[in-house]
Amino acid sequence: MPEQPQAPLLEQEVPVEQRAQKRGILYVVGIGPGAQQHTTPEALAAIADAELVVGYSTYIKLVGHLIQGKEVVRTGMTEEIGRARTAVERARDGATVALVSSGDAGIYGMAGLVFQVLKEMQWKRGDSPELRIVPGITALSSCASVVGAPLVHDFCAISLSDLLTPWPVITRRIEAAASADFVIALYNPASGRRTRQIVEAQQIIRRFRDGTTPVALVKSAYRKLQQSALSDLDHFLDYEIGMLTTVLIGSSNTFVFEGYMVTPRGYTNKYTWDGDVLPGQKPGHSLVVSPQAGNAECEEPE
Amino acid sequence: MPEQPQAPLLEQEVPVEQRAQKRGILYVVGIGPGAQQHTTPEALAAIADAELVVGYSTYIKLVGHLIQGKEVVRTGMTEEIGRARTAVERARDGATVALVSSGDAGIYGMAGLVFQVLKEMQWKRGDSPELRIVPGITALSSCASVVGAPLVHDFCAISLSDLLTPWPVITRRIEAAASADFVIALYNPASGRRTRQIVEAQQIIRRFRDGTTPVALVKSAYRKLQQSALSDLDHFLDYEIGMLTTVLIGSSNTFVFEGYMVTPRGYTNKYTWDGDVLPGQKPGHSLVVSPQAGNAECEEPE
Repeated sequence: MPEQPQAPLLEQEVPVEQRAQKRGILYVVGIGPGAQQHTTPEALAAIADAELVVGYSTYIKLVGHLIQGKEVVRTGMTEEIGRARTAVERARDGATVALVSSGDAGIYGMAGLVFQVLKEMQWKRGDSPELRIVPGITALSSCASVVGAPLVHDFCAISLSDLLTPWPVITRRIEAAASADFVIALYNPASGRRTRQIVEAQQIIRRFRDGTTPVALVKSAYRKLQQSALSDLDHFLDYEIGMLTTVLIGSSNTFVFEGYMVTPRGYTNKYTWDGDVLPGQKPGHSLVVSPQAGNAECEEPE
Repeated sequence: MPEQPQAPLLEQEVPVEQRAQKRGILYVVGIGPGAQQHTTPEALAAIADAELVVGYSTYIKLVGHLIQGKEVVRTGMTEEIGRARTAVERARDGATVALVSSGDAGIYGMAGLVFQVLKEMQWKRGDSPELRIVPGITALSSCASVVGAPLVHDFCAISLSDLLTPWPVITRRIEAAASADFVIALYNPASGRRTRQIVEAQQIIRRFRDGTTPVALVKSAYRKLQQSALSDLDHFLDYEIGMLTTVLIGSSNTFVFEGYMVTPRGYTNKYTWDGDVLPGQKPGHSLVVSPQAGNAECEEPE
């Protein structure tokens, strides 16, 4: 019997028996702060390999020059679930898809939601799609590099958005971070409608730290409209703080030097500037804390 | 009077009057986890531009193919002060220098020490050298991408090295992070000589979290000898943990799915999988927490 000519199928209409044969690929890609100079070759290769690129419209704009001729699904904010589902389902059905986030998709990014969608659809390892998570430079790193070296010692990242997380959970974290002298990076500090949270965060942190503690505000690092300011805990609320601002609050050891914000690692607890070991200390051994010196809480006695 | 021929000067012997004229450049460069696919074009350009490359010998090896024909100063661990001084002083004297770190030089990296050396030598903005800090992908991001999406909600980074920081400061931070339900990333968890700290950290965190809390161990992410393992809070100490291991400890909401570690952001508190808003919630407004539902502390009720 001669073969019947088949009607061409639309890409969305791959029949179930064919789906199983073609295993799609889902890249979850962090493009870094925005400028291509800070996007890794691996992220660029993932976008180049994709036939479909999915992302929040602002991020799609940042990679506009890389996606000419490709199918693009761009959605607005608060449409994250739809975006993740589109990316996962199209990749499951055989497409090579890049779901792009700015910064690192694994830090407050879309990577978590991708796994939740996969779980919801009872995906198993070996099923389509194959997952490839491509890390990027997160806002923590890009913003810190703009203002100096504020994150050279222990730090916390806290999102002030209470759209999805109960506010009491967030305040408990702010209080803990402040009390234990972490450098604190606040993501999503405020939006047009949401302005109360950063004020309350300032009040909580102020209970534990001096008003002169350095605070940096960085907006749109490495993008055209980059802005940054150095202030302190008593005054940083005088500046405009919005959705694109990252707020970096120093620890008790953070200092300002020539307009840079610096958190020291503690070398001067043990060494002279010639690299010699201070009396009573041993290289390669735990720091010996002298009770007389009163430096048990202080990494950089001056 | 005819000019006298001058003896050629060695590069180190630039006379003081010439020093002031040539302003050197000091790049402080994070090269990311190690594989060139994860090093940004900006970092590669900085290394290409440098005449002198300074770094810890392991990191110099990672960029070996990029530095042929350049002058290289490689030093061992615990020689950080000497390394920073060499880089700063040579750049001050007019050279273009790249001080390279793996990961991000601003996160537990050399950037802090550079500013301390500059402060020590009473450097002012506008003086030589010009500073250019180039961010890289930090271990947090690279390690997270290897095991899934563990850092999609609030997290802390804590170094367990007590070589420069008093151990009581560190334990206070571990306790605060554990009590406020942060995901915890432990840098420098152990070394050949320093093995007690990770055991004590486990005991502190276990007081606040279930023994089944997911824990990921990642070693040498994106390098030839990459290893990773997924365990839990009661069992992760059974694995080998060394200087190159990053330990990621989940929050109370972190789950394991098909061998991946995932911390959800909280979308299912507010939305259905079709993207519709749940009863009682409003998109763009604070999460409404129902006391009956008992989810005030829980982002992903199942």
